Amino acid sequence: MIVLFTDFGADDIYVGQVKAALLGHLPAGAVIIDLLHSVPNFHVRAGAHLLAALQSRFPAETVFLTVVDPGVGTDRDAVILQADSKWYVGPDNGLLSVVAARATKTQTQRIVWRPPNLSSSFHGRDLFAPVAAWIARGDLPIDVIEETRQLQVRLGPHDLSEVIYTDHYGNALTGLRAHNVPRSAAIAARDHRAPYARVFAEAPTHGAFWYENSIGLVELAAKGASATRLLGIGAGDPVRVID
Amino acid sequence: MIVLFTDFGADDIYVGQVKAALLGHLPAGAVIIDLLHSVPNFHVRAGAHLLAALQSRFPAETVFLTVVDPGVGTDRDAVILQADSKWYVGPDNGLLSVVAARATKTQTQRIVWRPPNLSSSFHGRDLFAPVAAWIARGDLPIDVIEETRQLQVRLGPHDLSEVIYTDHYGNALTGLRAHNVPRSAAIAARDHRAPYARVFAEAPTHGAFWYENSIGLVELAAKGASATRLLGIGAGDPVRVID
Amino acid sequence: MIVLFTDFGADDIYVGQVKAALLGHLPAGAVIIDLLHSVPNFHVRAGAHLLAALQSRFPAETVFLTVVDPGVGTDRDAVILQADSKWYVGPDNGLLSVVAARATKTQTQRIVWRPPNLSSSFHGRDLFAPVAAWIARGDLPIDVIEETRQLQVRLGPHDLSEVIYTDHYGNALTGLRAHNVPRSAAIAARDHRAPYARVFAEAPTHGAFWYENSIGLVELAAKGASATRLLGIGAGDPVRVID
Repeated sequence: MIVLFTDFGADDIYVGQVKAALLGHLPAGAVIIDLLHSVPNFHVRAGAHLLAALQSRFPAETVFLTVVDPGVGTDRDAVILQADSKWYVGPDNGLLSVVAARATKTQTQRIVWRPPNLSSSFHGRDLFAPVAAWIARGDLPIDVIEETRQLQVRLGPHDLSEVIYTDHYGNALTGLRAHNVPRSAAIAARDHRAPYARVFAEAPTHGAFWYENSIGLVELAAKGASATRLLGIGAGDPVRVID
Repeated sequence: MIVLFTDFGADDIYVGQVKAALLGHLPAGAVIIDLLHSVPNFHVRAGAHLLAALQSRFPAETVFLTVVDPGVGTDRDAVILQADSKWYVGPDNGLLSVVAARATKTQTQRIVWRPPNLSSSFHGRDLFAPVAAWIARGDLPIDVIEETRQLQVRLGPHDLSEVIYTDHYGNALTGLRAHNVPRSAAIAARDHRAPYARVFAEAPTHGAFWYENSIGLVELAAKGASATRLLGIGAGDPVRVID
Repeated sequence: MIVLFTDFGADDIYVGQVKAALLGHLPAGAVIIDLLHSVPNFHVRAGAHLLAALQSRFPAETVFLTVVDPGVGTDRDAVILQADSKWYVGPDNGLLSVVAARATKTQTQRIVWRPPNLSSSFHGRDLFAPVAAWIARGDLPIDVIEETRQLQVRLGPHDLSEVIYTDHYGNALTGLRAHNVPRSAAIAARDHRAPYARVFAEAPTHGAFWYENSIGLVELAAKGASATRLLGIGAGDPVRVID
């Protein structure tokens, strides 16, 4: 299974080209899943923490094609990460580094192969897609890669006290893992303090609250309203845990 | 064929997780179609009428995974509906009840099974997806369900004099079935009266008109313009038939 | 492989219905790719140039189902175009004509078949989908078509000095092919002049620049900013090459 995680936009011209590039190298019946194409544009740190939370929903041997790549066209490296029996292909710019730092077992390889007609702005299609497809079919040519000790850009394993994603309901996902936050704590964002509620049904009628969302993160929400509008927050904005 | 009908947003983090959950239970080559992920958020009544109109385009044995679920995390029931040889899996909150009320033959079952790690906010992934997959592969365990006489929340078979969906062209779909509305009637929305036109090419140059859309509903449109903007209407707003 | 190229909106009620219609005629395992569903609404000229640029990324025997169809319900023709061993199915309104004009070898056929329950507003589902599926499975009934010498609406092979698409990053794609524009030239849009840069990393810190994008077109962009907002431009707006 190949899983796409990008900031390419689900409704834009990029994803279809990536899929055509993948299918050109995959056997019939290969499965490609769109996990997310609306990672906040160019926001590597947010993407790194979101990926670390979302990957747990996918089985061993999944190949993640991950592209949030503001440095495309510069000399940033391209890498393959194996982490706890899943594969990740993408730029070495921090995007894969939270997954790596939290994994029990990792292996890292630089992609040294470059395709003959590599565009300067779309490595997702030209470089990462073929490599992901070769991994998925268990057939990565040996001269494509070079062993390396670790990723070059490393954000570390720690939680991130920031909004990392806002969904279309108006909820704000943070980079805080809920098991690290006591239920008695409030989450502060701008000049608001959001108390904990277990479920929407038990939340206060007015104002924002936080709860443990379905991927284990602290999420700011509001009953029958948009928390992002109510709090005036978006991806990259800081939050604080108030014990 | 499994068909997804939700308010999860096509460009959000939810649909990919649902697909991974489905594929974990499906044989290779299973077909999943995204019918709609932009049912107006939490708008069960609109979703119920939209589903009733859209389902007719799909063949017998289709399994619809339908989630518009403001009550997730409360004690609302989860159900399986068989209606005229199609299957529907979702919350018992009215969403399936227009389909049921208009069907010739129905059978209803409560889902009594709960997965070990059921999240409180994402039953689409944790509960409804496995059940839909089991039905699709013809392999629903007997202890997952309990026969029940009918749905608990029932909106009835009647047409709905409301806007139920606005598309990206700016057209407003209503819950009125066009075969129930004489062509001589106008549709009133706010302080406008929209006359009938058979096709866009025959519509008035200015102002809104109504026509029978491709799923049999009364739809408000405007030539070269957005009817929703022109009329200032959105999902949930009332319309009136003026004979 | 069937490739969808439309203005139906990726997050709207239309694409799922088209896929169901396709799958009703295709063998198991058939591949359908969403290339683009956000061609600027009803903008045939923009769509024609965008399709001509994007089609080159797809292999021989691809069947493109292309629908940007403001004249649906009028007497505009429906056609099949074969161009350099790829297939295109859509309205004869100019949408396929740039591909045709630039191809080495073309063959054109009018679709004379009409399905029994043809809607007046959704030929993508009712007419073009079955025809595309029959072509994809190599099984087009002879009485569906009629040979014709050429398309009726022809936009010609020439580049288009207009914005044809704006992506979600805020970049503006033009109908100018970059190999026709000297790197010393600037691109003027509104009252701005955008100089050339090879890659984002080499672009000016402020203001817009142009570069050759990954499908060979002149694209206006801005570093860390939205070029479309900066320049106040959108699909259909003129640009000028200033040598």
